[in-house]
Amino acid sequence: MMYFDYAATCPIDDEALEAYVQASKEYYANSHSLHDEGTKAGNLLEHCRTELATVLGVEMKGVYFTSGGTESNEIALHALVEAGEGRHLVISEAEHSSVYNVASKLQSEGYDVSWVPVSSKGEVDMARLQEEIRKDTVLVSVQHVNSDIGTIQPLREISQLCRKENVLFHSDCVQSFGKLDIKEVSPFVDSLSISSHKVYGPKGVGAVYIRPDLPFAPRIPGGTHEGGVRAGTVNVPGIAAFIVAAGKMVHRLQENQQRILLLKEKFFRRIELSRNGWSLVGDSKVNTIPIIGLCVHDFEGQWLMLEGNRKGYGFSTGSACQSRSEGTSTTLHAMGITKEQARTFIRISFRHDQQEADILKFSGWLSNMIAEKST
Amino acid sequence: MMYFDYAATCPIDDEALEAYVQASKEYYANSHSLHDEGTKAGNLLEHCRTELATVLGVEMKGVYFTSGGTESNEIALHALVEAGEGRHLVISEAEHSSVYNVASKLQSEGYDVSWVPVSSKGEVDMARLQEEIRKDTVLVSVQHVNSDIGTIQPLREISQLCRKENVLFHSDCVQSFGKLDIKEVSPFVDSLSISSHKVYGPKGVGAVYIRPDLPFAPRIPGGTHEGGVRAGTVNVPGIAAFIVAAGKMVHRLQENQQRILLLKEKFFRRIELSRNGWSLVGDSKVNTIPIIGLCVHDFEGQWLMLEGNRKGYGFSTGSACQSRSEGTSTTLHAMGITKEQARTFIRISFRHDQQEADILKFSGWLSNMIAEKST
Repeated sequence: MMYFDYAATCPIDDEALEAYVQASKEYYANSHSLHDEGTKAGNLLEHCRTELATVLGVEMKGVYFTSGGTESNEIALHALVEAGEGRHLVISEAEHSSVYNVASKLQSEGYDVSWVPVSSKGEVDMARLQEEIRKDTVLVSVQHVNSDIGTIQPLREISQLCRKENVLFHSDCVQSFGKLDIKEVSPFVDSLSISSHKVYGPKGVGAVYIRPDLPFAPRIPGGTHEGGVRAGTVNVPGIAAFIVAAGKMVHRLQENQQRILLLKEKFFRRIELSRNGWSLVGDSKVNTIPIIGLCVHDFEGQWLMLEGNRKGYGFSTGSACQSRSEGTSTTLHAMGITKEQARTFIRISFRHDQQEADILKFSGWLSNMIAEKST
Repeated sequence: MMYFDYAATCPIDDEALEAYVQASKEYYANSHSLHDEGTKAGNLLEHCRTELATVLGVEMKGVYFTSGGTESNEIALHALVEAGEGRHLVISEAEHSSVYNVASKLQSEGYDVSWVPVSSKGEVDMARLQEEIRKDTVLVSVQHVNSDIGTIQPLREISQLCRKENVLFHSDCVQSFGKLDIKEVSPFVDSLSISSHKVYGPKGVGAVYIRPDLPFAPRIPGGTHEGGVRAGTVNVPGIAAFIVAAGKMVHRLQENQQRILLLKEKFFRRIELSRNGWSLVGDSKVNTIPIIGLCVHDFEGQWLMLEGNRKGYGFSTGSACQSRSEGTSTTLHAMGITKEQARTFIRISFRHDQQEADILKFSGWLSNMIAEKST
């Protein structure tokens, strides 16, 4: 299958897998055990924490390893709610379900939540965001990159607003890590979350950064691992593999970005042939994120996806993690796109080193499908 | 290093690691994606669920994969509290920190918790347990096997008591899975938790079984993976490896148990030579659990552990996950052992296929250390 669903998950990188195998054999002990085997595993863990802190541009004592992006988002939101003051949250409507679900749970527990829509570009509505911030607002949560349409959010501006209003700011960087330089945004957030399997690392591993000067009680107090913030035996081999994969992505960031721009250009040039049959959702045509969201008129996205699958193309109709809005992408809902239009949505996401021939073949097929229907 | 800390964590089994590598390459997609790659991963996941349900002797629709034993315990306790009625919990004092910490958190949220001590054998005090159950008791939580001293708890009797009183019953089976037949106890519990890395599977993987007829809202509603009970991209390769490792342990269970009895006999025969210098904590001499807890008189356990480490023996002073009771093992505290005596505690845990020569060498060293001090 020609896989175009890298935003959902990536296969593990070969060198990361090799690191996993090696670490599983040589660093198998519990990183908290006090004998030499435990010390070895503990040292590797702290080495990984230092490496990750460096690529994120943050202090290592604010970095905690988790089981993935979903858990990272939960831990971060709880930490900020604990660390700050107030019972009001401001959340972008286009957030990933892992943020949405935690915010909804906090809402059910008595927190007040304001949901902020996004523009036709997919950018969070800054005027509305500013309006929603109140005296009792404890945090704002806006993702770095949208997982459905690839829009990059203006984290620096949001941060300025938050700092002025003395409100904490969390950003879900799961879709941006490895694709954008997190060092450029990390100084502007109070917490951020990332995931391993979105950067060709193993599944079941992630990390959260929480500004180390923020005082907060862990979600479940009493744990010993990960500074008490995340309990359970630490998955040291998985973390080691994650750091190898992440390091490779960060190291080649600019090169990858250039290549993604080139691949996108090829993609769009080809589907321009059926220009009247589709419209781009968001603004990802002009950025370096390898995610493209399209509304393909006169098609049911689900049908097109299944037809593509039959032809050997694996793309999706949006995040594999969402269930709300009766199957409609929440991002599209947040953009004010009607349910009817949203049904025509497909998401194409590729890898930085995807073969140009794959892109041409797939976009050719897609363009033909659309052109045939339009005529 | 001669590693004797298998109760803390095990290195991954070679075949499980091979399964991890294969599944990472071939079943890399998101198990919720609707294209063929996703379907493949989803099918493997459901195959693993069926396999696990079979070895646990439970219905597969009650089985959820998690990031490990700690998360499994949290999910189970929340589910039972949601499913049952009442605001009172009865928890064994010798529970693993992951149960203790969640129960403590529930206590801080307004639940009433009764902590039940254990006998000198390490068995939960049944009379006391019965006394503590009230009209508003929602659940009882007692582990299957204690991680510090290897005592097997009488789950069937506890279950009878719970059923009579209409109280739900959770058991942390992390230390028993792969060492005892869970099929013999699963009909008597309402939920149970297990972990992969304690049975030579990968770290960062576990499972929880919750009786499927129990109605409960997930801890965080809105997720789509794992029946909404546990959100986040499912670690299919890790789960596949877990099932391979677990299958091997369960398949060879009786053979392993016989071997463990033999190895224990060798161990105790050798340390009988310094009989006056130590005492067994609990009753694990006579069971098939490869965990031995000793109080070694006139020694600081921590010192002995470090001295052993210097000689190349890796054992511990108790669970690597605990921090309470100022470093004293909570199990020993639950048994009423004084803090002074508890400081002399060491835990030795070995593998079923450990070399007899290792056991003899180590127990010889230990016996000599003790004898020298006593004379």
